[in-house]
Amino acid sequence: MTTTKMRPIRQTIPLDEARAIIDRHITPLTRVERVPLQQAHGRVLARAAIATNDVPPFTRAAMDGYAVRAQETAGASRTSPRTLRHIGKLFTGQVAEHPVGPGECLEIATGAPMPPGADAVVIVEETDSTDDRVSVFSPVAPQQNVGRQGSDIQAGQMVLGDGEWLTPSRVGALAALGLTEVDVVAQPRVAILSTGNEIVEPGQALAGGEIYDVNKFTVAGVVSEHGGVPVFVRTASDTIDDLSRAVDECLAHDIMVFSGGSSVGERDLILDVIGNRGTVLFHGISVKPGKPTAFGLIDGKPVFGLPGYPTSCLTNAYVLLAPALRKMAHLPLALARQLTLPLGQRVVSAPGRHQFYTVRIENGVAMPAFKASGDITSMSKADGYIEIALDTDVVEKGEMVVVTLL
Amino acid sequence: MTTTKMRPIRQTIPLDEARAIIDRHITPLTRVERVPLQQAHGRVLARAAIATNDVPPFTRAAMDGYAVRAQETAGASRTSPRTLRHIGKLFTGQVAEHPVGPGECLEIATGAPMPPGADAVVIVEETDSTDDRVSVFSPVAPQQNVGRQGSDIQAGQMVLGDGEWLTPSRVGALAALGLTEVDVVAQPRVAILSTGNEIVEPGQALAGGEIYDVNKFTVAGVVSEHGGVPVFVRTASDTIDDLSRAVDECLAHDIMVFSGGSSVGERDLILDVIGNRGTVLFHGISVKPGKPTAFGLIDGKPVFGLPGYPTSCLTNAYVLLAPALRKMAHLPLALARQLTLPLGQRVVSAPGRHQFYTVRIENGVAMPAFKASGDITSMSKADGYIEIALDTDVVEKGEMVVVTLL
Repeated sequence: MTTTKMRPIRQTIPLDEARAIIDRHITPLTRVERVPLQQAHGRVLARAAIATNDVPPFTRAAMDGYAVRAQETAGASRTSPRTLRHIGKLFTGQVAEHPVGPGECLEIATGAPMPPGADAVVIVEETDSTDDRVSVFSPVAPQQNVGRQGSDIQAGQMVLGDGEWLTPSRVGALAALGLTEVDVVAQPRVAILSTGNEIVEPGQALAGGEIYDVNKFTVAGVVSEHGGVPVFVRTASDTIDDLSRAVDECLAHDIMVFSGGSSVGERDLILDVIGNRGTVLFHGISVKPGKPTAFGLIDGKPVFGLPGYPTSCLTNAYVLLAPALRKMAHLPLALARQLTLPLGQRVVSAPGRHQFYTVRIENGVAMPAFKASGDITSMSKADGYIEIALDTDVVEKGEMVVVTLL
Repeated sequence: MTTTKMRPIRQTIPLDEARAIIDRHITPLTRVERVPLQQAHGRVLARAAIATNDVPPFTRAAMDGYAVRAQETAGASRTSPRTLRHIGKLFTGQVAEHPVGPGECLEIATGAPMPPGADAVVIVEETDSTDDRVSVFSPVAPQQNVGRQGSDIQAGQMVLGDGEWLTPSRVGALAALGLTEVDVVAQPRVAILSTGNEIVEPGQALAGGEIYDVNKFTVAGVVSEHGGVPVFVRTASDTIDDLSRAVDECLAHDIMVFSGGSSVGERDLILDVIGNRGTVLFHGISVKPGKPTAFGLIDGKPVFGLPGYPTSCLTNAYVLLAPALRKMAHLPLALARQLTLPLGQRVVSAPGRHQFYTVRIENGVAMPAFKASGDITSMSKADGYIEIALDTDVVEKGEMVVVTLL
């Protein structure tokens, strides 16, 4: 009988210190890829977009009405309209064949190019027409109801800088330049691997002591939500050799996320593997759930060792992994969707640990929903979580708490 | 010379009325599709998920330590430890070969099945071991540090109801049941079509009077952000016949979004097409930008006629289309990402219209960024927008405003 080789976590670091260490070792990706414009939404622009031509490319009518010589409408009113000769119609996509001469007007659609001679548009609501005569009921100033060439974007102008996150309107701005493809920052590829002899792929039958892999799916969800591409690596068994082979496979990607094997057990070997192949930067953080979390580097690539328990794993995926991914992906910090609500029930927190406590929102009140770290339903039945600081032991019923929605 | 056939919008309805009309005519989709679990994230569950077995499937150690008979640890302390005989080790994925007898303990890893005989786990931090002896420094109660079979999910229990939005933890809960595929609500397929003879696909050369299609891309972005699948339909020219053929193509999908052709011009034919093929439910809303917006039904399918101007089109895509899509997709209402900030500059609003005003956030202040409805940079250079109610004419510099982030 050999003695135990279990290695308790004796030292933990505060959450903020863990965040700072991770941040120091995460570098924004420099890899660039070209995507068709219709796939650019949500991506990050890799190079500034410079306009090669004016938008709009010509001076155009900004309203439906009549293109006129503005000075000829001076003093027009309902009681004393100006009358102009209607010389034709111009639809969008057409170009005027004749200039608008003195005493003339051209019917024009919003977006059609202004005809030579005219310098303003009288809106249709301020006119009346019979045969070839148009009565104008109010004066317009030069350039009124006209969109000048280049007024939106001028040729040579930087339309979007590099690093801009491509919201719908920004993709629209690139379309306005006539672009069909765009260079964007690559999305971090995240190798996800659940470790442990007990972990079985869903769909297979469970033998004694076995459970289905949950963390692979929850981590993949967080990765997709925060700009990464999840890559599933085959489950590794609890041997240094097998885990080390798995690491070789993972090194083809930008970042590695292991779950399980980072606690105190003899076969929690992830830590040894990170140590053998690279550097462990921390192991153990003062949070609950999620204490047995490790972070390190192998060949310069970040490695997260998340706890095997589903709720612990997912909490730290949100709190530590997501910001790291956003930094790698050049994405703006996620603005958490938060609500401030009264707490529905007194909560006692673990002393000396920053605690994440899941809650359900019921009738405008945050009701504690936390079960156990090993319970996936602790999160799946929750609407969000509250945070209780390291130095707070109790939050009373009725106190206002900030709920971060899941 | 024929007289004008321009048809000014004489009547507009308030934004809330437009929203209510749309809501009355939007039905949540009932179409279901089966997807692999790794693609279920973000989708909506179509049928309740009932557990076919317990989770965890066996009673297990919740901590690393020693499986013991709890009563034998009564009174244990650092000064007066209880000593037990170490009979072996149990890792995860293994099943104990022998029960734990009186005076015995079994080293056990978190997640390993509890051996018969033992009813609690003493955590490793509260023990010391030499050879085959383990000293226990504190007592445990029965079931302490033990996760009971079915404590997370019991066989027969409804784990997730139909209509639940699949966040990462909910996908995890489905994985815990051993599922590999899941029935989800179909995503609304949105046929998107830009109308107008002046509209040219990016990548082609512009002739006189032509501009690049912008709205197709901005609307597609909004559609993807709100649970829909954008489907590009070829650009239609400004003839009733061509638009009607385009409608035939669109009817294969769940919802149609046209842009352009819904204003007052003679060739703004979308309205005629909706009227000929179905019913126009409204045309013209009291918002700025975005007044020339129409909504109707063709063969029971919703049709949006959005303005051709990029900012007007995109504003109404956010304000009217997005909620409609979320309802069709069974998605929860989007919790807008909002900030309350002082306004950096006085804004005068259009009387009698609910106004959306784009802003940039600069040094904690919301600075007006609105250019013109035809300008895509009015949105692409903005961080968000503020809303000015119908009955408000002026918002003074320094007043607090709610910024909805884009």
